[in-house]
Parts: sequence; structure tokens; C-alpha cells
Amino acid sequence: MQHIQPPEKSKLAYVIGPYQAPIAHVSPGETFRVSTLDAFENRIDSPKVDLREVITLPYVNPCTGPIFVDGAAPGDTLAIRIDDIQIPRDYAVSCLIPEFGGLCGTVFTRVLNEPLPQRVLIHPITKDGLVHDRALKIPAIPIEPFYGTIGTAPTIEAISTLAPGFHGGNMDAADVCPGNTVYLPVNVAGAHLFVGDGHAAQGDAEVCGVAAEVPTVGTFTIDLIKGRAVRTPRFENAEFLMSVGSARPMEDAARIAFHDLVTWLSAEHGFERMSAYQLCSQVARVRVANMVDILYSVVAKFPKRYLPTP
Amino acid sequence: MQHIQPPEKSKLAYVIGPYQAPIAHVSPGETFRVSTLDAFENRIDSPKVDLREVITLPYVNPCTGPIFVDGAAPGDTLAIRIDDIQIPRDYAVSCLIPEFGGLCGTVFTRVLNEPLPQRVLIHPITKDGLVHDRALKIPAIPIEPFYGTIGTAPTIEAISTLAPGFHGGNMDAADVCPGNTVYLPVNVAGAHLFVGDGHAAQGDAEVCGVAAEVPTVGTFTIDLIKGRAVRTPRFENAEFLMSVGSARPMEDAARIAFHDLVTWLSAEHGFERMSAYQLCSQVARVRVANMVDILYSVVAKFPKRYLPTP
Amino acid sequence: MQHIQPPEKSKLAYVIGPYQAPIAHVSPGETFRVSTLDAFENRIDSPKVDLREVITLPYVNPCTGPIFVDGAAPGDTLAIRIDDIQIPRDYAVSCLIPEFGGLCGTVFTRVLNEPLPQRVLIHPITKDGLVHDRALKIPAIPIEPFYGTIGTAPTIEAISTLAPGFHGGNMDAADVCPGNTVYLPVNVAGAHLFVGDGHAAQGDAEVCGVAAEVPTVGTFTIDLIKGRAVRTPRFENAEFLMSVGSARPMEDAARIAFHDLVTWLSAEHGFERMSAYQLCSQVARVRVANMVDILYSVVAKFPKRYLPTP
Amino acid sequence: MQHIQPPEKSKLAYVIGPYQAPIAHVSPGETFRVSTLDAFENRIDSPKVDLREVITLPYVNPCTGPIFVDGAAPGDTLAIRIDDIQIPRDYAVSCLIPEFGGLCGTVFTRVLNEPLPQRVLIHPITKDGLVHDRALKIPAIPIEPFYGTIGTAPTIEAISTLAPGFHGGNMDAADVCPGNTVYLPVNVAGAHLFVGDGHAAQGDAEVCGVAAEVPTVGTFTIDLIKGRAVRTPRFENAEFLMSVGSARPMEDAARIAFHDLVTWLSAEHGFERMSAYQLCSQVARVRVANMVDILYSVVAKFPKRYLPTP
Repeated sequence: MQHIQPPEKSKLAYVIGPYQAPIAHVSPGETFRVSTLDAFENRIDSPKVDLREVITLPYVNPCTGPIFVDGAAPGDTLAIRIDDIQIPRDYAVSCLIPEFGGLCGTVFTRVLNEPLPQRVLIHPITKDGLVHDRALKIPAIPIEPFYGTIGTAPTIEAISTLAPGFHGGNMDAADVCPGNTVYLPVNVAGAHLFVGDGHAAQGDAEVCGVAAEVPTVGTFTIDLIKGRAVRTPRFENAEFLMSVGSARPMEDAARIAFHDLVTWLSAEHGFERMSAYQLCSQVARVRVANMVDILYSVVAKFPKRYLPTP
Repeated sequence: MQHIQPPEKSKLAYVIGPYQAPIAHVSPGETFRVSTLDAFENRIDSPKVDLREVITLPYVNPCTGPIFVDGAAPGDTLAIRIDDIQIPRDYAVSCLIPEFGGLCGTVFTRVLNEPLPQRVLIHPITKDGLVHDRALKIPAIPIEPFYGTIGTAPTIEAISTLAPGFHGGNMDAADVCPGNTVYLPVNVAGAHLFVGDGHAAQGDAEVCGVAAEVPTVGTFTIDLIKGRAVRTPRFENAEFLMSVGSARPMEDAARIAFHDLVTWLSAEHGFERMSAYQLCSQVARVRVANMVDILYSVVAKFPKRYLPTP
Repeated sequence: MQHIQPPEKSKLAYVIGPYQAPIAHVSPGETFRVSTLDAFENRIDSPKVDLREVITLPYVNPCTGPIFVDGAAPGDTLAIRIDDIQIPRDYAVSCLIPEFGGLCGTVFTRVLNEPLPQRVLIHPITKDGLVHDRALKIPAIPIEPFYGTIGTAPTIEAISTLAPGFHGGNMDAADVCPGNTVYLPVNVAGAHLFVGDGHAAQGDAEVCGVAAEVPTVGTFTIDLIKGRAVRTPRFENAEFLMSVGSARPMEDAARIAFHDLVTWLSAEHGFERMSAYQLCSQVARVRVANMVDILYSVVAKFPKRYLPTP
Repeated sequence: MQHIQPPEKSKLAYVIGPYQAPIAHVSPGETFRVSTLDAFENRIDSPKVDLREVITLPYVNPCTGPIFVDGAAPGDTLAIRIDDIQIPRDYAVSCLIPEFGGLCGTVFTRVLNEPLPQRVLIHPITKDGLVHDRALKIPAIPIEPFYGTIGTAPTIEAISTLAPGFHGGNMDAADVCPGNTVYLPVNVAGAHLFVGDGHAAQGDAEVCGVAAEVPTVGTFTIDLIKGRAVRTPRFENAEFLMSVGSARPMEDAARIAFHDLVTWLSAEHGFERMSAYQLCSQVARVRVANMVDILYSVVAKFPKRYLPTP
């Protein structure tokens, strides 16, 4: 099985765009492995690390990619099934980054208040799960790994790996996990897929800006839906159809997600549009994936048990 | 057991405030029943009803109240356990109201596009659950009743029953359901509690603006926490501590909810504030309660299994 | 000329609603005077005042009112021409209020950062204008007085005098000044007009949350437009038609303002709606009135020189 | 004088980034000319043009660039004085683009309402000014030309020319006009300056999404401030210091703008930070530059007459 490694440091991908040379090729139907560094390039290994030395914008959240998907052409959709995620390290990292997060002033929500202090935690990963803080007597947190960042190149833009959007990117949606399929638009020949930002566990909204950050070895199976383009990322598993919106303010993220879900239900599952809208108001589920990144991400979910039987 | 009925039509409560005379008195520790009309005053019984005749602002979403809680004084907190909700009708109502909802122009998000058409559905309630539309071959939706609106009077404001806020109100949070306790601030003598807007089922975000609307007979047990005031509504059950934020844009609702949750964890459960913030980023859950009302409501949830053992 | 004084302290209006007894009556066509206290009840007279003692929510920003307008009935519009504003004091007050303002965490935009410190300035009013700070060598600021708060009672809501909205209220729009006419909706018999929050000078957006706060003696001439209701406040002078939107996020305030302006131009001035929209995109002016209150206020202005000649 | 022409069609710049080869070089102190196409590549010359043929995303709003500024290094600031803007065409173009604009559903503020129809106007430019519509008897609109788009390359991102941001870009700020100086950050060697999107006239907020679009011949004088980096675009003229914020929601744009203005006043003009904040609340002016682009832009202005004399 092909195993794609992150490139050497000078070629790490900090933007998702069409300007980098592919580091690997995969074919529709192929199952392959990808290794990823954590969001801090695996550079934090102690609570004493000074974040100002590690976080030197824009060089944060390196992705492994671009991966060229043979045969992918603009107007197609990439279907990426995540088969497995392994964590090749016995600890995860989290931190508070001054001027970044959901409950503090940021570079967008600018305030004159003093910034919060930095804070770094190293979380051991044991057989029981993630240890948040040995000093706190609380149970270990179950390991539920997923990719915070997965995306395909826009046509001509190069978008920071810190940002989510119509191309996927840094959605921080825990639904990008083993067993689920991610649908992403193909905008350029070969799609140029990027993946990174492994999380061992994350709360909805990723409120402090950082989850339990880990490197990964992931197993993926890729497929191509020719001639049909998703307009925003979609996820699917046995239980849910899911559409993702990434925008600010957060209600616009939710609007994008629900609008796409209603469109999906009416275009492919036999619902009249207004009927799908009204039914979503009774059965849909919503995940706030992040409220901290350059755009906020919201996942609108439709339980497949309510799909009409033909 | 005391059973509080909605007042006659001319005295129905369409605002939550201190200006109406109490319609009933309850005592701390008392278990009592409350009947409520649906959000449309039980006036919709057919898909042919013209919403323009039913919805005559500001006379929408009538609540039963104010209920005077003996001994409640400003600075206290009301703890309302919801024991049971019965639905005394064999159907629920939903509709699309032009210029109201999450995926259309509204009186706030003003657009020049033509409004969506009105649409009314009558949903039979059977032993299997809620029938969305007999013409669609989909399973019945489980009945999971809750109150869309529950609140206490602000000190001097009278707030539309269509609006949520620090006083509770129209949060449309499915966590206001049997088994859960709702904490609300006491701002005036007797608290002046209002309740209404029963929902037989609702999706997260209540995206079309309306859930499965029903009248109810609810059973409540009320308690009083003297001398301690919640600053925004809180919910609690065996599994979660929950804080509610209601604001626009939606990220401000999430900020209020998480800020209160972090405050709760640090003030009453032994967490250092930054530690609580960082842990929430790994284990919290979020419900988008509504994205359609005068303010949006978001519930931030902390799993009690992660509370430190003393 | 009738001169309406603020009521005694226990009856000061801190909400705009239908529940208070009128303190005066005026007739259409009448010119009358109104005295107002400043937003802090004239209680700040030194930089050493402790704001925590002065600002005891919800008792802030007292208005003079309700003033009953004879003959005003729901569905009418009140036209209030501001003839003059005098400042009966030789100083203005400004301050930084912790957790209030445009560049800090607030009760809505909740952050964990430490609040900004309080800061009070007393600004002498001299013949040259307002002295911001004698320690700074900068010119005096011209006195351009206006009312931060002017509104009419909603039908059943009682809205904090700190909030703007469709009823007017705390818009903090410098266009509520001598020479301009303010149009407000009549929702209850007698309209119940409230006015207060005099400002000797204010920057657009009132960014720190407070302007140069003063008591006033204003002269008003009131008129009634029977049977036509404005949906949101409007202003007019020789130069501009102006519509006000108050909402969060700020783009919704701008949408309300521009939607109403386009509606005004098409309903009363012969423009086709899309044509008015497109022309506004070339000649409109916008004032951000406030970015600090419970809702933000934006004024969209159409230069009357571009009204078609009949 | 060097005169820089837009490149051939296949090399037109639709992103602002570091990936394109410079089309010209200029030196600090040099005065030079730049020709630009209009936002629609000069392809609209009749009201009958079908916008669906002209607007093929992402190929909209072509800029002339990148222009390499000799000696510019990361950490410097580019000071670009706009000396003159000529319009080499006797008409301007405006239009309504479905799903784009301030008063309609868009790709972000997604709605289920039917889109607005497209509408194209050709505006003759006469000696009296811009003729909005000969069928309307209204005065000609004065020609006040400016550049909607001016920006420098980010370090590794390539940003759509439709988006504004910390790099400048599509701010649609009428202050980018003759007589004013624009300060932009230098992120890459040579700065890589792009300019385009000439407007013959524009209302604040550019509410319908389009102004009076024209090609231009501009004259610029460029200078370099070594070793000092602006964090967000700034403008300056004889009257005002101006900071620009671009973000969503609009209040974040205003926060960025005012935060930078306060920072500027305290870092370079002797104000204590809180004092600058409080003074801005009395004398600042605000321009809503756009409420239609990928991010909204707000300009906060400080009148230089209130700068302290040393």
C-alpha cells in the first residue's frame, strides 16, 4: 500500500492551492496511507515551550499534500473514505494561544484588553484514553481521532491551511473520522488533495482554538464522482447526510450548511425543496465544528432513516 | 396538584415582564401542572388556514403566566425541574412563515428578493410518533416534547415571547424537556415565571422557524436557590451541565454560553478558569437551539463525568 | 411654550414602553420644550466618581417621557422636528465603562480577558467648544448637540432605554439634531414619546461606548402623519432622506436601513425598486451611528438632489 | 514616465499573491502610470449583455500587476500616493448580479428565495458627470474616481481580487483616490503591488455590489517606509488618518479599523491608548466602504486637526 509522507520541512504545505507540485499520485479506488505532522510541526513536546517561537505565521498547521488524484477534472467530486487513523505518538498537545480562540480578543474581533497568557499542556495517551491533566482527578478522554484539515485546491486561490471554506480546509469537524466519507470539489486537474491537523479528541466548537493535537498515520480510500460537483464539503456515513458551511458570522455558516443539505435532499432524494426545509426543522442535527478559525464551520446533518423509500 | 390554565384570550402573555398580574402562585418544593396553548393559540387546524390571519404581531407565541413563586426575591435563582410533558391533541402543526426562518430574508436580514410562500402542515400524532407527511414514505418521528419558551420577568423590561435572552424566553432548546432542570434568574419579587411554545419534536436550529407545535400539559417541580443568581439560563441533567447564550451574531450566543460554562466550572467545581476553557475545547458538546428567533440560542454542554472527584 | 421636565427620580423612564403614565400631553403642530438629564442622571461631576456606584443596571440612560401626543393612533407616524438643543451645564462627561464599548469584551461578545479599567473625563464646555483634556494640546471640539435616544412605545414590549430598534430608542445617531425631522411609528394611542441622552459631540460609531454626555433643554415641533406607518425610524433634512436600521450583526442594521431607503424611494418618489437600489450604490451615504449598544445602528442616506423632478 | 499596461488576457491577475511573475518594476520615489481594465474586463458595452457570459468565477475583477517595487522587503510598508485617475472611456457600467449584493441572498447569506434578476446599465460620462439613467430626470453624478482594488501579495496566500483583507485588496473604499496616500504591508521581496477596479463614482457601502465601473489610467508615486510594517491598510491625506478593517461580521471590520487607528495614534502621535480610544468616540468619522464583498470593509478616520501639537 502506498504510504505518503509529509515532505521535507521547506516544502510543507501551509496553503491549499494549485501552486505546489504534487508529492504523490493516487488512483480512484486506491487505498493508501498518509502520515501527517501535528498542527505545530510536532515541535511542542513540553509545557515549557514558548509558543512565540513555534507559531510563526503563516507557517502553522502543515498539511501533507498536494496529492494528485489521477483522472480528477474540474467539475468532478472527490469521495474520500477515511478507513483508519493511527496516532504514532504517546501524547497529544494543547495550548492557549494569545489572541486566538473563542473566548478572547483576536486579530478579527479586535479588543484593547490585555491578551490571555499562553498555556501549553502535554496530554499522555494511555490505553484508557487521553489524560487531560494528571493533577485533575477526572477520567481519561476517549480517543476519537479525526482530521481537522482536509481540502482540495481552489482554481487559482491559495488559501491558508488555517482557513476552512468551500474547498474544505481547516473545518475542525469531528465527522472527518474513520468510517465517514468526505466529498470535496475538484477545481483543478488532479484535485490536489491536502490533509493534516490530526486531533485525538475535540469538543464541539474547539472553543479554546486548539484540540488534542497529534501526528497521524491515516488510511484512505479515494473515489471519483465524475461530472458532478459539490458546492461545499459534504460528509456521509451510515446514519447521516451532512453538509458543511464555513463562514462568518456563524449564522452564515449554518445557512450555507442547511441550504446545501436542502439542495441535496431535493436534488438526489426526491424531496420537494420546501418540504425538505420543513422536515429539517424537525429532525436535523447540527454540529458547531469550530468557532475559532478564520471562518467558522457548521455541519448540518440529516438522519438517513428519514430518506423516503423509493 | 395545582393545575394552572392559560388565562382567557385577552390576558394571554405575549411579553415576559413584570407588568402583568400573576395568574397563580406556587411555593418552593411544590409540584404543579401547567397547560399551554401552542404558538399559534391553537388556531391552526388545517393546511388551508391563512397565516396572515393567524399571525398578527405581536400577538404570537402566548405563554401561560406569570406564575408567582412565593419567596423568590431578586438575586435568587429559580430551579425548575420538568417532570413530564403531555400533549393533549392528536396532531402537531408546522408551517413556513414568509420573512421568518433560517434560510430566507427576514425583518432583520432584509432582502429585496420575493418572500417564500406560506406553507402549513398538520402532522398526525400516532402511537408510532409524529407523521411528517403521509404522502412521503418516511418513518414517524419520535415524540420528544419540550418547551420552546420558558422565562422569568426582567426587572423593568417586557420582552416579546418570541425573543430569548438572559431571562430565558424563546430559546427553542430541546433540553427544556422532562428530566432536566432549568435555572433562571429571579429579577423581581415572585420571579414571574412564564412557559409555553410546546414542541413535539424539533431539529437542532429549528431551521425553518417552526417545529412541531403543540399545546401541552406539563408537570413541574420548582425550587429556589436563595442568594445566588445565574447570569444566563442554565440547564442540568444527570449527564450535562449546560449554559445557554442568546445573541446575534450566533458566535456571540456561543461566547455567552461557553463563558458561563467556564465560569460555572471554575466557581463551583474546582477548575482553574483557563484549565476549564482548555478542557471544554476537548470534551464540550454544543447544541444550536435556534437560528431563527429575534436572538439565536446556543447551548454549551459539559459532560459531568469529567467533573473532578473531590 | 410648554416645558416638560424629567419626572422625579423614582419615575424616571429606563424603558420605552406602554406601561408608564404620560407625564405630559402635546398636540400636533405644537412647539414645546423638553429638559433631559444626561445618561448618568447628572450624577458624574468629577473624574473620581466610581462608575460602579453610578451605573446600576438597568437604571441607566433615563429618558424624559412618556409624552402623550393627542390624536396619535396606531398606524400613524410621528414627525418630530428638532428646533433647538441647549446645554444647561458648562461641562460634558465621558467615560470608559468596563465590559462596555466597541473595542473590548462585553456582556454579549464575552471574553475571558481582564476587563479594561474604568476612566472618567470631565470636559469643560467653553465658547470655543468642548475641551477634551486640558493636558492634551488639541483644539476644542465643536458643539454639535443631538439626542442619542428618542423613541415611541412599542405595542406591548418595554424596551431598555439602552437599546435602539424599530421604535427608535438609543440609536446614538448624530442626525437627531436641530434642523432635522425624526419620523417614528405610532404603536399605541398617544404614541408615548421618550427623549434623552443628549450628546454635545460624538464621533461616528461612538466607539468607546460613551460620547460627550450632557443634560439638555430641547425645543421640538411635533406633527402627525395619519394612516401611514414607518416600519423603522426615518430622518429628513434639506439634504437627505435617511433610514435607520438597528440590529446585530452590523450588516443587518445596514440591510434594514438600505431596504427601507429603497422602499421609501420607490413608494413615494417614483423610483422603480431595482433602479433605486442601483442608484443608492452610486450616491448613498452611510453613517455608523453606534457599534456599542444592545443593537448597532446604521443610517443610510439618499441625497435629495437626486430625487426625480416630477 | 513608465506606463504599465494590463497583461494579455491569459495573464490577467485574478488573485493577489506571490505566485505570478512581475509585469513591471518601479523604484521608490518613482512616479508612473498604470492602466487598468474595469471589473468586467471591459466586456460590458450594452444593457443587453448576459452577465452569465461575462461573469465566470473566479475570473472577475482583473488587476494590473504584480508590480515589483525595487528594494521592498518583508517588514517594510509601501506608501502609494495616488496623483491622478483618468477614465479613458465615455461610459461607466453598473449591474445587478444575481446572488451578489447587500440586499439579497448570496453565496454566504444563503436563502431559498428566488434570486433577483440581472440588470445592466450603461452610464454615459458627460462633461456634467455620470448619467445614471436618461429616463430618470435627475442631475448627473459628479465623477469622483478611485480604485476599488489595491493590494500587495501576502507571503504565501493567493487571495481572490474580489476579497479585501489585511493585504488591501478589494476594499472598495472611495478614499483610494487622487490626493490620498495608501499604506500597504510588504510581505514578499518587491511587495508585488496590484491595482484595478476603477470606479467613477460609488455610494458608501456599494450596496448593490457594483459601482460605476470604468477602466482607468492612474498616476502613482511610490515610496517605501523601511523596517516598519502596517498590520492593516492605512490611508492618509491632509485631513485624516485612516485605518481600514476588512472582516465579517461588519462590526469586526470596524473593530479592526478602530483598533489600528488607536494603535496608530498612541504609537506615533503621543496619545495614551485609552485616551485615544475615548477621543475617537468624540471626533472620529467612519466610512462603510463595502457591505457586499467577500469581507466587508470599514474605514475609521481621525481628523488630523486633533493631533496634539508637539
